[in-house]
Amino acid sequence: MPATPAWPPRSAPRLFVATPLAKGEAVTVEGNQAHYLAKVMRMAEGDVAILCDDATGEWAARAVSVGKREIVLEPAEMLRPREQVPDFWLCAALLKKDRFDLVLEKASELGVRRIRPVLARRCVADKLNLDRARAIVTEAAEQCARTALPEVAEPVKLDALLRDWPADRTLFFADELGGEPAATAFAANPGPSALLIGPEGGFDDAERAAVRALPGARPISLGPRILRGETAAIAAAALWMATAGDW
Amino acid sequence: MPATPAWPPRSAPRLFVATPLAKGEAVTVEGNQAHYLAKVMRMAEGDVAILCDDATGEWAARAVSVGKREIVLEPAEMLRPREQVPDFWLCAALLKKDRFDLVLEKASELGVRRIRPVLARRCVADKLNLDRARAIVTEAAEQCARTALPEVAEPVKLDALLRDWPADRTLFFADELGGEPAATAFAANPGPSALLIGPEGGFDDAERAAVRALPGARPISLGPRILRGETAAIAAAALWMATAGDW
Repeated sequence: MPATPAWPPRSAPRLFVATPLAKGEAVTVEGNQAHYLAKVMRMAEGDVAILCDDATGEWAARAVSVGKREIVLEPAEMLRPREQVPDFWLCAALLKKDRFDLVLEKASELGVRRIRPVLARRCVADKLNLDRARAIVTEAAEQCARTALPEVAEPVKLDALLRDWPADRTLFFADELGGEPAATAFAANPGPSALLIGPEGGFDDAERAAVRALPGARPISLGPRILRGETAAIAAAALWMATAGDW
Repeated sequence: MPATPAWPPRSAPRLFVATPLAKGEAVTVEGNQAHYLAKVMRMAEGDVAILCDDATGEWAARAVSVGKREIVLEPAEMLRPREQVPDFWLCAALLKKDRFDLVLEKASELGVRRIRPVLARRCVADKLNLDRARAIVTEAAEQCARTALPEVAEPVKLDALLRDWPADRTLFFADELGGEPAATAFAANPGPSALLIGPEGGFDDAERAAVRALPGARPISLGPRILRGETAAIAAAALWMATAGDW
């Protein structure tokens, strides 16, 4: 018996679009996305792409016209509704560009709901190109077949982050000076959570004291070795997903 | 009261050397390492470096001569003995160079004892420059203040890895088709462990069957999202350290 061809084809490109998707309602793709579909993926009329809108879910869509500057696609079938995203924020101090790019990419794969870049005294970077950051998380979500995008918020100074902290959300704080083992702390504090990771060199004493003074703060330890900022963020996010999230 | 100056100074460079270290027995550093100390760190006679030998531990050493091509250092005091390294191997399928570099760097930070690159049918890479790989893990260990180096073994084909598998070592196998939640499996199987991570696209059916046939193999799940190869390796290594290792 011949195998049934996969639907949609395994090689179908995946793409997030800004327009909410509905069956039969054509969407137009332009710019880099049109270039990617037409030139890189050599899409032709009738070919299938997988579209996500970060709202309804994931759709198989057929190209109804392929032009040089724009491609029109028509959603034919919803494949999956938008996934449930665990209620976990990553509040990570800005790092050098390539290191923070890695945080953005890996947080997307791991299923983080919201990424909040933090400005601390020892940060060597103080700016984030938000459009670029959002492009990185979108590409990561496309690659790893997520149907939801993590939100990337504007960078915020640590004191402002703490001032406006929601009372019902635990803030796990990776403290170089020690704390409860992370796996134990995560399992013991279910519910809305966030992880705070400092810059290379850590928070300074005043910053550490301010974080510890927050009622919802829980200092955690990530083991006996010194982890780089991006490693701490990735390792602790994975550990939260495995012990308190949806693994 | 003035603060006591830190000893060794916080800014002291850290370096792994190939010679076993002993108090008062001078060691000579050449090549890239001499260039790094003299030109990048501007080391002068009398300055202090922190040396590790991956055998005895970590030493404060003073430069007794600084030449253009070589620097002679004399270990003055042992600061820490070589750390205990958890008995955890990472058997990761070769990935594209930059992705595998990340695995090497992060495995070093996370405290992996042995990295065994694996060749599987869907690997897009089939070669690893071992000298370069060892330089990456050494630099990572220097940066994160480890006193032990992970061993980087020669790449091995999956069937040879399985044929010679030690009977007393659990092989946790990140299986895209599912398995026990990783945190549960790690906690339930203490003792010598290893993690097997497939290439992008996963192991093929014959490879998966061969792994599952190994008596010590335990299929594990890393959650509902598809992780890239390097993300799976980093996330699962962190999770093992937190649930069965030394965090």
